[in-house]
Amino acid sequence: MLENPRDPAHDALRTALQAKLDRKTKPVGSLGRLEQLALQLGLLQGSLEPRVRRPTALIFAGDHGAARAGLSAFPQEVTAQMVENFLAGGAAICVLCRQFGVELEVIDAGVAREFGPRPGLRLGKPAAGTRDYLVEPAMEAAQLEQALALGERAAEAAIAAGANVLVLGEMGIGNTASAALLSACLLPAPLEPLVGRGTGLDDAGLARKRALLAKAMDRGGRPSEPKQALAQYGGFEIAALVGAIRAAARARALAVLDGFIVGAAALAAARLDPRVLDACLFAHRSQEPGHTLQLAGLGARPLLELDLRLGEGSGAVLAVPLLRAAAGILGEMASFEQAGVSDKLE
Amino acid sequence: MLENPRDPAHDALRTALQAKLDRKTKPVGSLGRLEQLALQLGLLQGSLEPRVRRPTALIFAGDHGAARAGLSAFPQEVTAQMVENFLAGGAAICVLCRQFGVELEVIDAGVAREFGPRPGLRLGKPAAGTRDYLVEPAMEAAQLEQALALGERAAEAAIAAGANVLVLGEMGIGNTASAALLSACLLPAPLEPLVGRGTGLDDAGLARKRALLAKAMDRGGRPSEPKQALAQYGGFEIAALVGAIRAAARARALAVLDGFIVGAAALAAARLDPRVLDACLFAHRSQEPGHTLQLAGLGARPLLELDLRLGEGSGAVLAVPLLRAAAGILGEMASFEQAGVSDKLE
Repeated sequence: MLENPRDPAHDALRTALQAKLDRKTKPVGSLGRLEQLALQLGLLQGSLEPRVRRPTALIFAGDHGAARAGLSAFPQEVTAQMVENFLAGGAAICVLCRQFGVELEVIDAGVAREFGPRPGLRLGKPAAGTRDYLVEPAMEAAQLEQALALGERAAEAAIAAGANVLVLGEMGIGNTASAALLSACLLPAPLEPLVGRGTGLDDAGLARKRALLAKAMDRGGRPSEPKQALAQYGGFEIAALVGAIRAAARARALAVLDGFIVGAAALAAARLDPRVLDACLFAHRSQEPGHTLQLAGLGARPLLELDLRLGEGSGAVLAVPLLRAAAGILGEMASFEQAGVSDKLE
Repeated sequence: MLENPRDPAHDALRTALQAKLDRKTKPVGSLGRLEQLALQLGLLQGSLEPRVRRPTALIFAGDHGAARAGLSAFPQEVTAQMVENFLAGGAAICVLCRQFGVELEVIDAGVAREFGPRPGLRLGKPAAGTRDYLVEPAMEAAQLEQALALGERAAEAAIAAGANVLVLGEMGIGNTASAALLSACLLPAPLEPLVGRGTGLDDAGLARKRALLAKAMDRGGRPSEPKQALAQYGGFEIAALVGAIRAAARARALAVLDGFIVGAAALAAARLDPRVLDACLFAHRSQEPGHTLQLAGLGARPLLELDLRLGEGSGAVLAVPLLRAAAGILGEMASFEQAGVSDKLE
């Protein structure tokens, strides 16, 4: 995976990137987080002129057996309906990908409907939805491996097609519940503050969700090992996201992470190997309250704070223009010498 | 200028825009600030399908007589040198405008060098720099009117060429000092916390800047009337920005505001007529500490928080992709009915 950050070549590249940024015609550090993005991209690509190439959004969809107990403000069928909406180009993520020139692939990681081969859809799910973690583990170990491998293949295929930036998103009715259980296991942290309103539960719905998830945790416990936690609480789309993050980091592509559900996958991937975080960009802070707890647990500060709570990668894709801007600063902006601008008082 | 917000047609449009957003295939409100942007654009353009047309960055440059007293980490010549850098395409704002498909015009509102006619540069300054406000008022009343009119003409010309989004930025060695004095007058607020490091003063430089500006205020007082404050403390580029904001609001174009210096212009424009704020987007929060005090004084929450402190409109232009995204959500995203997605539990 990523090299050791103590590697002298890595240190030399960091010094060279910083020196290049500091000679651009601007006060040192005055482009703030754009400079940090430029540095991250440069280190990841091993280049003083990193590029954003064929950015590709991978949206992993999956259903959750426990959703039928009433964990969401929307019925389970909406997962499959939204996959159709993605394929038809009508969803928010489709609009944003078109606006920003980002490729889009949907991955059926475990939707409770059979789609068959369709353009823009990757198949290969372990099952048509996880089992109900209120009564039994969400998946078998072999299914978990299948979901992880599906995510790896999706990321590897996008990278093979030329992408060096992967926007990672998801769709799955009930998946904030899985993300809350996983985060409680992996942070670790108390469950209750991790459970939020998801797509818009009212107070009674939120109380019900909290009670159900406490019951689930009484049954399944609080495994701190990522694969055990994923097997207990799902979902397939979250496991596939773990695979995609690992594959991106291995290939030195940037994984641009969306909100709370992708955050649970990042938590699992980082617990398996913290070095993947060098390849991760936490694109925004979701309004789902557990996301802030995940970010704090990972010591991450998100790039954007736009009060989003949609999922689908809609927050992550908004980081793509800023990545292009950061690469442009390194590649195209004039230095003091080139522009004949004084860099200090005489 | 803008109509009265109590206007029934305005209320009806707001209701229709909100209803349209709420039927899109997403939980109500889940696109957060993108939805607010869509609403602002729709209200401003009087349309259920607002568009971002020919976004244009107007960068106002000017010099300050007081800068020769040593208020900045950079020498005064840098203002003119950076104008050359803008015209040559090497500055950060040039890179960002190219990345995002934004037109760029530089306005010589008062630089201490004569450029003559050049492509991409608008002329018409009242003088080659303001007078030194440490010893006398920065400008005469007639010069102030000339600067205001120059900004209005620049905005009107961009709008006549097809722009409905104006990105407003500035360049001027010493202009965080003017902005601090203006903010102290117009908020009103104590001077000291409004005085920051600008392009990067060290502790001794900051102490010197604070002492000099306190002396300036002892001389010029604390006029709360915007034109009096501008005449006392300048700068020409800030006065021109006030004119540009007023012209944008009058034409119902969006004025996308950069950081602390543009914030001082927004403060002056809002004190002259608060309705201009309906046409203003506070694009980001600058690291210059006075900007946060301006934003609080105007009750504004900025869109981005990226630790920028460069100026040039570099923070404002980063909002353009988000504006396009917001317009795309209203214009292109499918409704529940169009996509056949369930919008509630059965």
